[in-house]
Amino acid sequence: MQLSTVLNGVLLPALAAVLWQYGHLRRRAESAEAEAQRARESPLLAPADYDAAIRELHADGTTAVCTGKVHTDRICRFQHLCYWAPADEFLFFHGPGSVALPSLGARRFQPALLDLSTVDDHNTQYFNVVDLPVSSLDRLPRPAFLSDTALIFNRFNPENLMHVLHDDLLPAFYTLKQFGELSWNYTRLVLTEGWSEGPYFELYRLLTGRQPLLRGELSSLGDLLCYPRAYVGLNKLPTWYQYGFTQPQGPKPNLLVSGNEIRHFATFIRTQLNVSEPHTYSVNGGTSEPYIVLIRRTLNRLILNEAELILAIAQEFDARLLAISLDSHPFREIVRIVSGASALVSMHGSQLALAVFLPPGAAVVEIFPYAVNPTHYTPYRTLASLPGMVLSYIAWRNERIEDTVTHPDRPWDEGGITHLSAAVQERIERSVEVPLHLCCRHPEWLYRIYQDTRVDITSFLATMRQVIPDKLTAPTPVPVTPVFPSRVRVPRCKSVVDPKSADAHIMVTWQPPWNLDFLPPQEVQYEVWIQEEGENTYSPYILSALNHTFVENIHPGTSYHVWIRCLLGPSLQGPFADALTCYT
Amino acid sequence: MQLSTVLNGVLLPALAAVLWQYGHLRRRAESAEAEAQRARESPLLAPADYDAAIRELHADGTTAVCTGKVHTDRICRFQHLCYWAPADEFLFFHGPGSVALPSLGARRFQPALLDLSTVDDHNTQYFNVVDLPVSSLDRLPRPAFLSDTALIFNRFNPENLMHVLHDDLLPAFYTLKQFGELSWNYTRLVLTEGWSEGPYFELYRLLTGRQPLLRGELSSLGDLLCYPRAYVGLNKLPTWYQYGFTQPQGPKPNLLVSGNEIRHFATFIRTQLNVSEPHTYSVNGGTSEPYIVLIRRTLNRLILNEAELILAIAQEFDARLLAISLDSHPFREIVRIVSGASALVSMHGSQLALAVFLPPGAAVVEIFPYAVNPTHYTPYRTLASLPGMVLSYIAWRNERIEDTVTHPDRPWDEGGITHLSAAVQERIERSVEVPLHLCCRHPEWLYRIYQDTRVDITSFLATMRQVIPDKLTAPTPVPVTPVFPSRVRVPRCKSVVDPKSADAHIMVTWQPPWNLDFLPPQEVQYEVWIQEEGENTYSPYILSALNHTFVENIHPGTSYHVWIRCLLGPSLQGPFADALTCYT
Repeated sequence: MQLSTVLNGVLLPALAAVLWQYGHLRRRAESAEAEAQRARESPLLAPADYDAAIRELHADGTTAVCTGKVHTDRICRFQHLCYWAPADEFLFFHGPGSVALPSLGARRFQPALLDLSTVDDHNTQYFNVVDLPVSSLDRLPRPAFLSDTALIFNRFNPENLMHVLHDDLLPAFYTLKQFGELSWNYTRLVLTEGWSEGPYFELYRLLTGRQPLLRGELSSLGDLLCYPRAYVGLNKLPTWYQYGFTQPQGPKPNLLVSGNEIRHFATFIRTQLNVSEPHTYSVNGGTSEPYIVLIRRTLNRLILNEAELILAIAQEFDARLLAISLDSHPFREIVRIVSGASALVSMHGSQLALAVFLPPGAAVVEIFPYAVNPTHYTPYRTLASLPGMVLSYIAWRNERIEDTVTHPDRPWDEGGITHLSAAVQERIERSVEVPLHLCCRHPEWLYRIYQDTRVDITSFLATMRQVIPDKLTAPTPVPVTPVFPSRVRVPRCKSVVDPKSADAHIMVTWQPPWNLDFLPPQEVQYEVWIQEEGENTYSPYILSALNHTFVENIHPGTSYHVWIRCLLGPSLQGPFADALTCYT
Repeated sequence: MQLSTVLNGVLLPALAAVLWQYGHLRRRAESAEAEAQRARESPLLAPADYDAAIRELHADGTTAVCTGKVHTDRICRFQHLCYWAPADEFLFFHGPGSVALPSLGARRFQPALLDLSTVDDHNTQYFNVVDLPVSSLDRLPRPAFLSDTALIFNRFNPENLMHVLHDDLLPAFYTLKQFGELSWNYTRLVLTEGWSEGPYFELYRLLTGRQPLLRGELSSLGDLLCYPRAYVGLNKLPTWYQYGFTQPQGPKPNLLVSGNEIRHFATFIRTQLNVSEPHTYSVNGGTSEPYIVLIRRTLNRLILNEAELILAIAQEFDARLLAISLDSHPFREIVRIVSGASALVSMHGSQLALAVFLPPGAAVVEIFPYAVNPTHYTPYRTLASLPGMVLSYIAWRNERIEDTVTHPDRPWDEGGITHLSAAVQERIERSVEVPLHLCCRHPEWLYRIYQDTRVDITSFLATMRQVIPDKLTAPTPVPVTPVFPSRVRVPRCKSVVDPKSADAHIMVTWQPPWNLDFLPPQEVQYEVWIQEEGENTYSPYILSALNHTFVENIHPGTSYHVWIRCLLGPSLQGPFADALTCYT
């Protein structure tokens, strides 16, 4: 066979086939990469995917499936949710494939489908959809499609760091975790409250690999913008504070978050900000020295003798004191500094939300102006006290009227009161404590909270001493989350009646919880409750052995219920085993 | 240049390079396919991915993020949830990356982390985890990893079709929809109640592309089985009935599901069963004829004159009547038959849950034994009455004691009462209606519901006539979900006080809702509420114009609040626009 024959007859066709397949595979790989690149640049769906998306929208309409029985506890996953910019409304296209849970009946207007922010049931934060038949698409402009999965919510107050961290970032972080589909690379926050970027926008940027979209930007993508996949709403479980819209402000009831989840979030933010090592001070290049941070306010609610206070604290604790403010350093640097601090000192205010970045073992010292009761305003006290947060907290309150400077002539929302009647002004000025009140326009509260304060050094240092030992200590290691004992095993009860005396006993036995073997040695006790059937009260016993014979108040011919649980160390109560019933 | 030079110097190296790359790409494509194939066969993670999974488990520990403030409204997404077969417990390994929302404090034992079934707060359905430090892994056998994302829940009663459809399949279907991550191809149901497959297991197989795992099978995969990703719990929103554990049985309060979501689920099941066309009867190959289905019970709660009843119905409606039972046909065939039926007739019982497959416009006729009040047992009445379900429903009750056959000698759970005292037996036998009661062991209820019945033909046909027209009609088309009017636009109010008479008026104006333009023509009205400030009552007005001047009971120098909403057709109330306030 001639070479040319081999070439033409066998090799070249084989080569051609291989080349074609190779080219095909390469083109596929390349086009996938090019597409990924385009997707990185534009928030809109790649043209290649457009036809399929619009076909699906026309064929199916919109779909929504939500968690939660009530609007305050609800997050919805939508397919083909659309936004109509000219009317500033979200649209639900009713088509043959549309489903909605909850169903889109009239109840969704009483008052809303869900809350767009973690602040409960606030009428500026309601989300709803406008219904349209899917046939309306023929009379609307061609929709644009967002390529990424959207997480849609309202920032509650993007200008206030406490609100930014507590209401938005922390909940959004956990909402992203909760829905595995919301992966970092393919999720875009859509912030719908309508504000501009605001001073903390860079923090919202950290949550996913995509630039967040603001409501004001949506119209630039097209009059009709559709989200193939969108989650609407936030997980409220990580929040710890309610701001007093329906009852005076305070910790949320039944807190479901611990310091561990806050710290995990703080670590994520640090990582995203590229803060690998906390700030340290070292003496002559040696080991790092503990330091205290004072966060200054620069516009209002001032500490009037700040320089004096700084010197006094530094001297008292023989420590370096760093005075910073939210605008003195880039946020990254602020996080770095707070992350290494042994204590944080500040006037009451949103800058204290930085305490989420404090290392375990640090102290928070919060200053309150005259006539403001620290126990009524506890966002930072509550934070510091969360189990596993391991921060000590103390409040100092200005008790001397001569050390306060009021601002009656300022606008009402900076504490001015001259717009009020003379009688009301006089009452406010004479009051020695702001009474409990609702958010957000209580004149006496605003008047008092916007006072400037001269801090009484002696009294302040004495207060600070209560949470800071003689010598500042370095941060303690991150605590591990507590490991609770599981249920006691093989719980049994047996009744014995002495035939002579007719005395009755109940003997209860059990085995230690299964997971005890894996835990470090610590004190183990058992709590046993015994209750006579039909009675409302029970008798609790704390025991160390694995059995107990009950003799007191045990009568023959009676049924008794018995519950047993394990107690580990000073505070960990395990679950009760199933109730036993024993008849004497 | 010689051909051989070209070959050796240029073509062959190029070819070799191309071949290598081609081979590389092919191997990648092939190995991905082979891996997918292996994954189809084994529920366990491919060996290639094992090391990464175990590294991640050791490094991070377990993570859980849940929806829902309370355990009855909660679904959790876990990463690295593990199951320890020897103790039959789910394990949470506390490691450096562990987070849990809600935090794993003592409250999770009061009473549980979440419900494993859609039945609310039932103590046999509680889910919890046993805590272990991640270091315990060193003392446990090497874990096996499930490759798919798991959806873990309890079947409430896998032997009862109503429970299977209502408690499990419908909620699981929507839970899968709610979490986009739970895609058909890569999700495996893990059924943890501990029962064997049961008679309806094939239906559970329809929900995802993977074979479901039973709790009893978990140990065969390894003593320690870990789920890289698992969702635990079910969305309860699609359920409509509560079985009477804490109050007498009845519809759930605040129903959040409509017929549309039920029908969407039924369509999915039909598609999965490959039931493309409903059953039809045609006369001489012509158009299909409407028919009635009677679902027989074959073991208990019998219709004693079934043959007579079948003949009578067929004659009365001049229609074919198909008598089937749950065991007379494969489930697929039953669904096909019910999907084309004009009416479904049956004794009260779980077989009536097949009504979810009825076409719109069909009728449900439910038969109740003597002394059982149909208004107290309404799972099927509630289903038929869901908005958008478009089924008519009627109950027939045996009113004649001579037509009932009781079974006092059977076991207690089949209605026997001979284990009770003579007095109680006599009371039960004399009672003419079972009183309201809780589930599940009420002897009088069991005695009555397990009666057999001779159906009085005349009375029954008269009842059936109330929901079935003279001539059976073919199924009506599937209704579209209702499209509600959106809010009225530019609501305004203006007050006018006549300076002479001092009479005050309030003029209110508004514009139609934005979406009205897109809806078919129908009656549009507006509801306006007006309330004097400080009063508790308001006056509602129904109006047709786009403005109204209020003159009655309007006083000068007074504030009034005004709310406006659109009413569309006979029943669709839109949302209220933001309240207006007008001062006269």
